[in-house]
Amino acid sequence: QSMPLAFTLFAPSHTTSQFKNINSQRLYSSTSNGNNSKHEIEKKRLEISQSNSPVYHQNSTLYSYTPREVLERIDREFVMPPIYVPVTFSDKLAHSSVKFLRKFSNLFFREKYVSYAIILETIAAVPGMVAGMMTHLKVLRNMENNNWIKILLDESENERMHLLSFMELTKPNMLERGLVAVAQGVFWNLFLICYFINPKTCHRFVGYLEEQAVISYTNFLRDLDAGLVKNVKAPPIAIEYWGLPADATLRDLILVIRQDEVDHRHVNHEISDKIKVNSNDPIRIHNHFLESPETTNNSSVAQDKKDKKTNQLHPAL
Amino acid sequence: QSMPLAFTLFAPSHTTSQFKNINSQRLYSSTSNGNNSKHEIEKKRLEISQSNSPVYHQNSTLYSYTPREVLERIDREFVMPPIYVPVTFSDKLAHSSVKFLRKFSNLFFREKYVSYAIILETIAAVPGMVAGMMTHLKVLRNMENNNWIKILLDESENERMHLLSFMELTKPNMLERGLVAVAQGVFWNLFLICYFINPKTCHRFVGYLEEQAVISYTNFLRDLDAGLVKNVKAPPIAIEYWGLPADATLRDLILVIRQDEVDHRHVNHEISDKIKVNSNDPIRIHNHFLESPETTNNSSVAQDKKDKKTNQLHPAL
Ligand SMILES: [Fe+2]
Ligand SMILES: [Fe+2]
Ligand SMILES: [Fe+2]
Ligand SMILES: [Fe+2]
Repeated sequence: QSMPLAFTLFAPSHTTSQFKNINSQRLYSSTSNGNNSKHEIEKKRLEISQSNSPVYHQNSTLYSYTPREVLERIDREFVMPPIYVPVTFSDKLAHSSVKFLRKFSNLFFREKYVSYAIILETIAAVPGMVAGMMTHLKVLRNMENNNWIKILLDESENERMHLLSFMELTKPNMLERGLVAVAQGVFWNLFLICYFINPKTCHRFVGYLEEQAVISYTNFLRDLDAGLVKNVKAPPIAIEYWGLPADATLRDLILVIRQDEVDHRHVNHEISDKIKVNSNDPIRIHNHFLESPETTNNSSVAQDKKDKKTNQLHPAL
Repeated sequence: QSMPLAFTLFAPSHTTSQFKNINSQRLYSSTSNGNNSKHEIEKKRLEISQSNSPVYHQNSTLYSYTPREVLERIDREFVMPPIYVPVTFSDKLAHSSVKFLRKFSNLFFREKYVSYAIILETIAAVPGMVAGMMTHLKVLRNMENNNWIKILLDESENERMHLLSFMELTKPNMLERGLVAVAQGVFWNLFLICYFINPKTCHRFVGYLEEQAVISYTNFLRDLDAGLVKNVKAPPIAIEYWGLPADATLRDLILVIRQDEVDHRHVNHEISDKIKVNSNDPIRIHNHFLESPETTNNSSVAQDKKDKKTNQLHPAL
C-alpha cells in the first residue's frame, strides 16, 4: 500500500541488489535517539551527495546536488512509473479529468514544448500549496500532527522552480501570459473547493497529472534527441536550484524535472491511498528521514511487486 | 538596512571577534560555482552541527541539531532584540495593533503561560502561511523569482511546531479549543485581506508581534527559574524537531522557541523594510546559504550599529 519517497527514482524496476545498495545509504536506524539522529541526518545527506547516489531527491530539492554522474544514471536507468489503476469511482473521476485536460491542452500546443511546459507548470504549482495550506490549518485546529505539510509545500516550491526555469528559456507573449493568469486563477479556486469537498480524489487527480507530466517530459527528451528541439544551455536558476554541473543543458534540466514529477506522482498517490474518507486521524506518510531502513525495505519491495502488476495491466493511459 | 538571517542569534550584541568566529563557519564564498556550492552547503551544515555553533538557525529548523552546549550558549549569551522604531504611519499602525492585542490577551491569561502560548502560537502560525502563499501566487503570475517564500513557509512550520509542542504539555479544555478555532478563523481572513491591501504593514505587524513573543518567553523563563512553573520534561515532538538532548526540559524548549521568535522578528522587519509600495520588483532578502560572507559581515555590522541606536531610543515597548 505504501510508497517510500526516497526510492522513487528506480522504484518500479528495483532488483534486490539495487535495494541493498540504496539501503546501505539509508539515513539512520530506528534505534537512534532524537539527539544523534539529527546529526546523523546531516552526515548521511553529505554522504549521499558525495556518493552520487540515486537517492538524491530528499524532502526538499533546495539543497540538492546533481553532478554529471547522477544525471547519467537517471537518464540510463529511468523506468516509466506505473499507471495507478483506477478502481473506485473517485479514482475514475480523477483519471477522466486528467485525460480530458490532456486532450484539451493538446489542441492548443502540439509541438510547442516549452510553452506547453509553462502552462503545465503554472497549474502544477497550485495543488501542493492548496493542500499544504489546508493541512496546516487543519493541524492548527485539531492540534494533531501531520507530516505531509512540508512535503506538499516542497512540491509547490519544486513546481515553481520548474516554471521559473522554463521562463528563463522563453519569454511568453501577452496571450500566453494572460492564459497563464486566467488558468491559475480558475484552477486555484476550483482546486480549493474540490479540496474542501474531497481531498482523497484531489490527490489522486494530482497523481494522474504527474503521470502525464512524466510522459510529456519523456516525449520532450525524445524530440530533443531527434534534434526537433534545440538543446540550449540550462538557465542559471536551474543550475543553482538542482546543483547541476556548470555546463548543464536543457536536456539535463528535463531529466531532473522528470524525476521530480516521478516523486510527485508517488507522493500524491500515496497520500490519496492513506486518506480515509470521514476520518480525522492524523495520517503519516513515509519520510525516509524519519523511518527505519527495515520498514522501508519491506514496503518498497511490496510496492515494487504491486507496481509491476499494475504496469502490466495498464501499459499506457 | 539589511539583516542576515544566520546571525540573528547574537545580532544586537556582536563584538567584532564574535563576528569573525561566526564568519569562519560561514557557508561558502561568493566565487564558488553552482555545482560545488551545493556540496559545500551540506559540508558546512555538518560542520556547524559538529561545532555546536550558535548559527544553528538555518533556513528551516527541520534538520536542526541543538545539543546541550548550544542550549547553554543561547541561554548565557541571549540579548533582547531591539524594538524596531516605528517611523511611518504604517509602522505606527502595526505597533499600536500589537500593543492592543497584548493588552487584550493579558486580560484573559495573566499567569496561564502555556494556555497563553497556545493562543499566541495558533495565531502566529497564520502570517507565514498567508504571506508564503500570496508570494508564491504572485511569482507564478509575474514569473519573477522571490526568495522569501521558503523562509516564510518555514516560519509557519516553525510556529506550528511551537503549537504542537505546547499541546503535548497540556490538554486545552473545550472553551480554549473553541477560542483557538475562532481566533484562527478570524485572524486568517483578516490577515489575508490586510495582506492583499498592504503587505509592508503586515510584515511590520508580525515583526512587532515577534518582539512581544520574545518578551513573553523571557518572562516565561524568569517564572520557570523562580519555580512558579514546573520545569517538566520536553515533549518528544520537540526533542525530535529541534534535535534537543534526550533529557531536555520545558526550559530548554522555551530557549529554542524564543530563539526562533528572534529569527522571525528579524525576517519580518527585514521583509517589511524591503517592500516598496507600488513596486513589482522581485525583492530578495538575505539568505545566508546564498550570499558571500563579506556582504553579510558588512551588513551585519551596519545593522548591529543601527540596532544599538534604536534600542537606546526605545528601551521598552
Ligand atoms: Fe513540474
Ligand atoms: Fe509535478
Ligand atoms: Fe512561536
Ligand atoms: Fe514567531
